[in-house]
Amino acid sequence: MNSSRPISRSGRFLTGPAPEMTKFSESVSFDYRLWKHDILGSIAHAKMLRKIGLLTQNELDEIVSGLTKIAQRIQSGDFQWDINLEDVHMNIESALVNLTPAGAKLHTGRSRNDQVALDTRMWLREQLVEIDQLLANLQQALLDLGKRHIHVLIPGYTHLQRAQPVYLAHHLIAYVEMFHRDRERMACCFNRTNICPLGSGALAGSTLPLDRKYVATQLGFVDQRGRPRIASNSMDAVSDRDFAMEFCAAAAILGIHLSRLSEDLILWSSNEFGFITN
Amino acid sequence: MNSSRPISRSGRFLTGPAPEMTKFSESVSFDYRLWKHDILGSIAHAKMLRKIGLLTQNELDEIVSGLTKIAQRIQSGDFQWDINLEDVHMNIESALVNLTPAGAKLHTGRSRNDQVALDTRMWLREQLVEIDQLLANLQQALLDLGKRHIHVLIPGYTHLQRAQPVYLAHHLIAYVEMFHRDRERMACCFNRTNICPLGSGALAGSTLPLDRKYVATQLGFVDQRGRPRIASNSMDAVSDRDFAMEFCAAAAILGIHLSRLSEDLILWSSNEFGFITN
Amino acid sequence: MNSSRPISRSGRFLTGPAPEMTKFSESVSFDYRLWKHDILGSIAHAKMLRKIGLLTQNELDEIVSGLTKIAQRIQSGDFQWDINLEDVHMNIESALVNLTPAGAKLHTGRSRNDQVALDTRMWLREQLVEIDQLLANLQQALLDLGKRHIHVLIPGYTHLQRAQPVYLAHHLIAYVEMFHRDRERMACCFNRTNICPLGSGALAGSTLPLDRKYVATQLGFVDQRGRPRIASNSMDAVSDRDFAMEFCAAAAILGIHLSRLSEDLILWSSNEFGFITN
Amino acid sequence: MNSSRPISRSGRFLTGPAPEMTKFSESVSFDYRLWKHDILGSIAHAKMLRKIGLLTQNELDEIVSGLTKIAQRIQSGDFQWDINLEDVHMNIESALVNLTPAGAKLHTGRSRNDQVALDTRMWLREQLVEIDQLLANLQQALLDLGKRHIHVLIPGYTHLQRAQPVYLAHHLIAYVEMFHRDRERMACCFNRTNICPLGSGALAGSTLPLDRKYVATQLGFVDQRGRPRIASNSMDAVSDRDFAMEFCAAAAILGIHLSRLSEDLILWSSNEFGFITN
Repeated sequence: MNSSRPISRSGRFLTGPAPEMTKFSESVSFDYRLWKHDILGSIAHAKMLRKIGLLTQNELDEIVSGLTKIAQRIQSGDFQWDINLEDVHMNIESALVNLTPAGAKLHTGRSRNDQVALDTRMWLREQLVEIDQLLANLQQALLDLGKRHIHVLIPGYTHLQRAQPVYLAHHLIAYVEMFHRDRERMACCFNRTNICPLGSGALAGSTLPLDRKYVATQLGFVDQRGRPRIASNSMDAVSDRDFAMEFCAAAAILGIHLSRLSEDLILWSSNEFGFITN
Repeated sequence: MNSSRPISRSGRFLTGPAPEMTKFSESVSFDYRLWKHDILGSIAHAKMLRKIGLLTQNELDEIVSGLTKIAQRIQSGDFQWDINLEDVHMNIESALVNLTPAGAKLHTGRSRNDQVALDTRMWLREQLVEIDQLLANLQQALLDLGKRHIHVLIPGYTHLQRAQPVYLAHHLIAYVEMFHRDRERMACCFNRTNICPLGSGALAGSTLPLDRKYVATQLGFVDQRGRPRIASNSMDAVSDRDFAMEFCAAAAILGIHLSRLSEDLILWSSNEFGFITN
Repeated sequence: MNSSRPISRSGRFLTGPAPEMTKFSESVSFDYRLWKHDILGSIAHAKMLRKIGLLTQNELDEIVSGLTKIAQRIQSGDFQWDINLEDVHMNIESALVNLTPAGAKLHTGRSRNDQVALDTRMWLREQLVEIDQLLANLQQALLDLGKRHIHVLIPGYTHLQRAQPVYLAHHLIAYVEMFHRDRERMACCFNRTNICPLGSGALAGSTLPLDRKYVATQLGFVDQRGRPRIASNSMDAVSDRDFAMEFCAAAAILGIHLSRLSEDLILWSSNEFGFITN
Repeated sequence: MNSSRPISRSGRFLTGPAPEMTKFSESVSFDYRLWKHDILGSIAHAKMLRKIGLLTQNELDEIVSGLTKIAQRIQSGDFQWDINLEDVHMNIESALVNLTPAGAKLHTGRSRNDQVALDTRMWLREQLVEIDQLLANLQQALLDLGKRHIHVLIPGYTHLQRAQPVYLAHHLIAYVEMFHRDRERMACCFNRTNICPLGSGALAGSTLPLDRKYVATQLGFVDQRGRPRIASNSMDAVSDRDFAMEFCAAAAILGIHLSRLSEDLILWSSNEFGFITN
């Protein structure tokens, strides 16, 4: 089979992709969410390149200042995302190069493959912290509710038939326990997400003397004693997203617990049950 | 709506369930797999009942001896499972009562609700230990294979196009890393599975002075320092199976890693790739 | 349990929902996609209300003219969606009432429950027609490709081992067959989607003399002979979305076929296979 | 990489697979369920081979008589399934060859690939017919129940809050409608399952003058006018199981409807609702 589009002697297409292809392969319409982490990751990477002598101080200053400007423009809704630049990384890099020629050096020792792995991990880390806080609040609210009605007895059900009386607080604390395990699961997931993939390149690492531990520390990829956590194998680091799958599973289990609690509240609010009135 | 089947004045059916209902609600055709854990759990529960004075030594001896006989009959394929007795618990309990009248006391301070939660946790615990060992073997096999071909270079691919050369060992170690995280996930799951639910009763606990920590310790529900781990809330303990969902998710992620490795081997064995020959 | 928020004597909250609740329960941020179908449905409903005498001609004219203006504003990006108005229906209805007092009568004989069921069915119907056309194009492209290389033989594989030679065209036509069944499945789904739920009200129908067949015909809910297709049971019509689940399943199966074709192309484009070159 | 197991000069292993491999790759422990369809399919295939002159009448008689004996042994629980023979097809074929040397000719013009596709389609066809009948019974039972209580009004709920009164019969008929669509879906699935794959061979068809339409007719793969329905493309026929996926989806949707009905009955049977009493 031969392609019917014009190609060069070296075998590459002489024209750009069809509009349908651009639309199909772009991801910026949803991965723009990673902008903050992309910029933070780039600043840390640039500092590291300066540290090992691959950027001058002036270049570093221009890169940091440029990225800061871009961040402000994005935050204020002033940034034009362009699907022809495919993804969040290319959009930001292109804007940076427009601001300063030093921007072109930011790609040194980095590939989009380890960059997107980094951004995804940083984004998920942030979500995990927020979910943990929300669950802690929910647990406290359940405990407070139980305490306010400490002597209230309600029926305990099996197969929705009244079986044995239980304290309302006992029923509510069952959920506190469930959310405790959900928080444990999120913490387990955090532990496997909080590993810095930078330095993996496209898949085979880099021949440059990158200081991977320095970048990891800058970006908070550290263990409880503050020691940097970096990916051990570059092919694994750029190709596996099991931390994201693990999060989806933990979130689904959490969703079941929330749904069960909601169903209790809906039942109790019904005219027939009438446990919740106003 | 009124049922058309004969009922007593107290509102209960005077006849047993229809054969279709028996077939629909039975579980022994698949939960028979829990027999070993059911028997071990019952022996530990009986010892505890003896310890707190609810069984005589003679009764305990007869129960343990009866359960041991039943275990031998099951192992040798000599036990008749009966779907009319619904599940593994009723089948074994019924056989025990046939062997000794003391068997009827085994239900003291226990419900099928906490019993099935116990058995499921014990069964899963065993599977998790076995999976961990199998994964350790697989990691070692990959390391050995990498060592035997320590100088072999193969193409590293992006989008199945040759990108950069990598060592075969580097490629294989990517899987060692993946299976390491899979083992971590199984260990996390073990940690949440290894909690003893006994004492929760049907849902509201028990008024008997059960020694829950004693039973937990007997059955190996202990933390790394040997301290017993028992469920904190009875309603949670009998109604949630999130440890099982967590296992399913971890197993699915493991399955993806195994599938990816298999695809590599299939590709490499093809005539076109030809990396694996004989 | 008593709520701690201020309530009236009739038991209703005296204040609006918390901002978190507004954000949680709004759907306009994604159901705005239904705007075109919502407006078309409203116009047909208004015409029917005119037909049975519940709207004057003047009121109908003002409603149609108002909805047309709103459609233009939405299309030109000039419409302000407001999450405080919860969903696409309330946003459009509210804008209409601002344009003409007649807008308030549009709700006669209709509930948001049958309205959203209608919009969803109309939206999905449109998607199904587009998918069918795209698949027909893809089938034609595969047939054309096969014809252009009518004498080309390639290996047929079992377990990715060369088994028997086959014509490239034979291989490609296997996909034409698969996409034929996918189109059949989409047509089956269309058949169950193309039923008009209007007239079901919130759940119990309406006591007004609605002309359900007239509305259905206006909106193209007709069988192959042009006879109107209307939902038979109001509770079913407002509460079941099985047509959407059926679509998701058919789309997932289609996705597997597309993925399989893609993998073939990726394999054939590899250096090792080399069936596709340039 | 070289295998460490003994191999012949032609590159094949000189010893059989490891016991772990036998256990991993066998399927007879679950595909034994296909035995009846496998035997019916083989009888039809043998008759066709006789029709086109590839079997003598005597050979056909011995094959049919042998397969009939095997069927009787399986039905009476007298057949020894052997996982070393991998699957249901090899188990039955091996038993047949032991009964008559003519059995060895049964494989003519057939591969395990089209054979297993045939058996799976025949098995699913049978299940679909049974499910349809069970759903028809269920619909009738709901209609009968509605009729017996034709004047009974119950609350209609939105968000489990009483909204409008409805007839019990109206509520029940909502399910009759749902099950009607489920039956339609099963019928659509039947339509795509009821296609005979025999003649596809391993993947590339057969050079023998097989009478595919004769076999299809013998096995009931016919349309409503009795015309045979045979697969159009051999690669598609042996490699795609989309009819099975379609069934899984339809069964899942049916499951949701059954679950919803069950939840109604559970709610109505609760002490709080008390709609169902005895």
